[in-house]
Amino acid sequence: MPVPVVPYSEVDVLVIGAGPAGLMCANALANARVNVRVVDKRAVKVAAGQADGISPRTIESYGIAERLIRESVQVHQAAFYNPSSSGGIELTSRAPDVTAPSARYPFEVALHQGAIESIFLDSMTALGVEVERSTVPTSIEISKDENELMDSASHPVRVTLQRLDVPEGQPQEEIVHAKYVVGTDGAHSWVRKQFDIAMEGEQSEFIWGVLDMVPDTDFPDVRNKSLVHSNHGSVLLVPREQDRIRVYMQLEDKDIINPATGRVDKERMGPEEMLDVARRSLYPYKLIPTTGILWWTLYIIGQRVASRFSIKNRVFIAGDACHTHSPKAGQGMNASMNDAHNLAWKIALLVRGWAEPSLLSTYESERRKYALDLISFDKMFSTLFSGKPLTEENSHGVAPEHFMKTFQKFGGFTSGIGVHYNPSVAVSDRNQEVASGLVIGERFPPYKFIRAADAWPFEIQDLLPSDFRFKLLVFTGDFSDPLQQARVKSMVANIQKPESFLNRYATPGKNSGNPRFDIITISKGQKEGFDLLQFPTLLRSHWSKVFIDDTDFTSSFGGRGYLYYGVGPEGALVAVRPDGYIGAIAPLDHVEELDAYFASFMKISA
Amino acid sequence: MPVPVVPYSEVDVLVIGAGPAGLMCANALANARVNVRVVDKRAVKVAAGQADGISPRTIESYGIAERLIRESVQVHQAAFYNPSSSGGIELTSRAPDVTAPSARYPFEVALHQGAIESIFLDSMTALGVEVERSTVPTSIEISKDENELMDSASHPVRVTLQRLDVPEGQPQEEIVHAKYVVGTDGAHSWVRKQFDIAMEGEQSEFIWGVLDMVPDTDFPDVRNKSLVHSNHGSVLLVPREQDRIRVYMQLEDKDIINPATGRVDKERMGPEEMLDVARRSLYPYKLIPTTGILWWTLYIIGQRVASRFSIKNRVFIAGDACHTHSPKAGQGMNASMNDAHNLAWKIALLVRGWAEPSLLSTYESERRKYALDLISFDKMFSTLFSGKPLTEENSHGVAPEHFMKTFQKFGGFTSGIGVHYNPSVAVSDRNQEVASGLVIGERFPPYKFIRAADAWPFEIQDLLPSDFRFKLLVFTGDFSDPLQQARVKSMVANIQKPESFLNRYATPGKNSGNPRFDIITISKGQKEGFDLLQFPTLLRSHWSKVFIDDTDFTSSFGGRGYLYYGVGPEGALVAVRPDGYIGAIAPLDHVEELDAYFASFMKISA
Repeated sequence: MPVPVVPYSEVDVLVIGAGPAGLMCANALANARVNVRVVDKRAVKVAAGQADGISPRTIESYGIAERLIRESVQVHQAAFYNPSSSGGIELTSRAPDVTAPSARYPFEVALHQGAIESIFLDSMTALGVEVERSTVPTSIEISKDENELMDSASHPVRVTLQRLDVPEGQPQEEIVHAKYVVGTDGAHSWVRKQFDIAMEGEQSEFIWGVLDMVPDTDFPDVRNKSLVHSNHGSVLLVPREQDRIRVYMQLEDKDIINPATGRVDKERMGPEEMLDVARRSLYPYKLIPTTGILWWTLYIIGQRVASRFSIKNRVFIAGDACHTHSPKAGQGMNASMNDAHNLAWKIALLVRGWAEPSLLSTYESERRKYALDLISFDKMFSTLFSGKPLTEENSHGVAPEHFMKTFQKFGGFTSGIGVHYNPSVAVSDRNQEVASGLVIGERFPPYKFIRAADAWPFEIQDLLPSDFRFKLLVFTGDFSDPLQQARVKSMVANIQKPESFLNRYATPGKNSGNPRFDIITISKGQKEGFDLLQFPTLLRSHWSKVFIDDTDFTSSFGGRGYLYYGVGPEGALVAVRPDGYIGAIAPLDHVEELDAYFASFMKISA
Repeated sequence: MPVPVVPYSEVDVLVIGAGPAGLMCANALANARVNVRVVDKRAVKVAAGQADGISPRTIESYGIAERLIRESVQVHQAAFYNPSSSGGIELTSRAPDVTAPSARYPFEVALHQGAIESIFLDSMTALGVEVERSTVPTSIEISKDENELMDSASHPVRVTLQRLDVPEGQPQEEIVHAKYVVGTDGAHSWVRKQFDIAMEGEQSEFIWGVLDMVPDTDFPDVRNKSLVHSNHGSVLLVPREQDRIRVYMQLEDKDIINPATGRVDKERMGPEEMLDVARRSLYPYKLIPTTGILWWTLYIIGQRVASRFSIKNRVFIAGDACHTHSPKAGQGMNASMNDAHNLAWKIALLVRGWAEPSLLSTYESERRKYALDLISFDKMFSTLFSGKPLTEENSHGVAPEHFMKTFQKFGGFTSGIGVHYNPSVAVSDRNQEVASGLVIGERFPPYKFIRAADAWPFEIQDLLPSDFRFKLLVFTGDFSDPLQQARVKSMVANIQKPESFLNRYATPGKNSGNPRFDIITISKGQKEGFDLLQFPTLLRSHWSKVFIDDTDFTSSFGGRGYLYYGVGPEGALVAVRPDGYIGAIAPLDHVEELDAYFASFMKISA
């Protein structure tokens, strides 16, 4: 009997798990023309339920806002309910759902996970990448050869994949050699377990019930995010597409622990029992599912973070594989996609041979710190959310105003807008004073500028797409001032020297444009008399690259961008990372500061 | 030899000509689920060139803004050039391209006609309607039987269609019996000629040359709409997608008349000769096509309007078949699509048996008046545009400031925002004082209101889609004021009486919602304490139907809608036509005013 030949292949990146984190990662890499494969054990994609909340920062990110907004519902308002004197609950206050003044989209959107995944799946399909379903990894190992690990062209990770859906007798196994492997395989991550990565944090677990329905109700805030504290428990309502709502409720151990065994017994709690729990909390309002319970689940979750997010900068875990926490701050899917967003461009630069492995180390340092912050927030917020309300009988309960203030105080965090990465090779903390409103290590804040060539107003974030290039924003100041003009011309001369990063990291063989850097010019000036042809050609590689800090023709916006960004009349150079985060700032007469920044992780093309 | 049998069929509406007007019409009818066919003599759709300018009103209309804006370029700024002292031209001033304060989109967009047609074609395809190409009508006649003409279920128009692309021996002819025929077959309309409709107006004709190119140029305003007066002629530049520009130039008779014959000879003027004409006008700036001339044409046009737009309210002409004029105000495609937009909902209502033929008469009265206004404007503007500039030698020339002021003064007209329909069965001019900012006979102006259920801000125009329903906007005033509450409740009682239009024109057999009327409630109030459940159910048929005149959470907009619309504390009832025009206004305590309005053209279902 012949020994079956196991197929063997190579790939740049293998993504294991096709949830939101995995699809975000695979799609981003496909967009960067990286050779990527993505596998998932499930035979079909999720059709309903699962995660549903998208934060303001996630909407701004990845260029998916238009479709996301078209398909989703917007959540603008939060309503807070507390016990009333007559035994039920009553409206205490309403407030903006998002408290983050610089948010481009000052709202959350809600949409079922399957629809969000479809956005990435459709994009990937157009790029020729499909999820390989019914496929599980059965072994993974990283080469121990240090030379191989240091060689960016090597494929040091060996994964065995098994197909679950092939007829007997056909080959079911395949050996894949990958440059990089990303494990986005969920809270019970197989990848994480293979490398014995511990989940650190509280051992205690919380039980959550979730229902989706189209309600018949007289609850006045059924289309708002409603945070309900009652004497019978806490409930969170989230509006959803197609008149649906989602109901989250925290359950008590007694609801679900089998007293005979002392262990969790999911059979004790079905959708009808959950609905009863919700109804007790919402009394005196009625809540009747008009078309049944459309989806439901029960989950038991701890507040924990993985001890490591990467192994030898060749295997990474991201998303739920790295962090587990409660659903109530709506962070889960956002944290997962943002992990992947942080990782994808770094891997892409390595695969292209444009960056040193040190860049990859910033994935763990940036995202693990974020995950720890998320867990801290979740603990604090969970305690408030699940705590008994303040009543005459319970003088240690949660005061409504304290809960609402906390909700608002952490708006920067929960919106994703306030995420801050510490200094590293990818974040230089020098020269913050040159652009005090552009916080180094945070995402570039939105503002509208007028395109010089045609007075078309542009949101600057739209000029900073996740296209794997660094954006170099040149704030020239007022070019009609002779002194400032001289300063700009001197900067241009310096940046064009052979030893400057712009030429040092030019990619040979490319004759049109610089694939690594995109230069965008933002000048002071008025549209009526502005002449963009006055600028050195480096600052106007195309007519569309020059913007002015002026109001639009309807005087509705614009004109105070320098002030908002804290950039003085001397101008500034700002390097924005491919993921939209501010990496470095320099004065115009210190181009060498940017040389140093890029030298810390960038590689000269071979 | 057997006599060939000519196929015979019936259709509700036959559209002849698949340019922008015909496609707009066919798509609108398909959306209304009207049985429609559209034929065109051309074998393929236009691929490049042709019309390209879309006005602000056209962008707001038909629900195509999102795709239009994604694919097109925006024109925000106009630049005016005039002779300089050194012999060439120089920049005189820049100004907003659109001067229409209430425009929702304060810019024009430019995109080639083929891309615009694709928007309609894709929509039609999804509805199962395809253009039948290579097909020409060869005969058309309307029944002379008055009873048949008065019967809305009859098919009194008989058209013979001939297929041009079938193999010999196969049937090439088909007889179509239609309820209505729309001739959107261009300036040389076959339909118009069959009914001997005269084109009235100036006999003199003007010759225009047009070029599309990607330019290499040092002309500073190449990405703006540039209106150039030079001593060598006038040129209009329009920016286009993919770095292209369009160059329009008016040519002189001597350029194109063969002196031997005294007749137009198109052979005398090719793209190279046109480019020379443009270059002379643009001196000292260079204009070099980098990838050749991408498209060009030459056309000879008079300023004329058809004497009639309809025959017995059964056959209509629309678009270029009705009006011809110069291209320079960018009105052609807009006027054509807006003709069709005006006509389609009226035909749809007739086909459904919901309206009397008197409604159809308003097509000619509304659109012919507009066409006459357009020709008057075109004559005046052409004279200024083509006139010699004011110079020392030419003291009767056109003064730059006069030209620019005229350009701005007519911004309401050229934007399409200011189109005004006179009183008719479809426009009642009573009660204007009840909502002084909502001009009866004009389009409903945009404003943002906050949805009561979830504080989601909505542009009111998005609540008034072209879906063939009349929108009844109920401005309730402040419902927490007991007097006003009583007034609203009394209005609701009146409007629910059997003899009120709402019940009188209810369509039997429909048990959910009213297919003819959509009721939208706009209340005064603040989102923080508002309870939409307080309203009578008629005013909240769905939770999404109630809006409040309040600011959004970022205090960026909203909150002054009553003031902007001139609606007082007593509220108002406003009937908006399916095409977004204001048809009638009534005080809350005079519902009978709306009864009278709808009785003037609406029909009780059989």
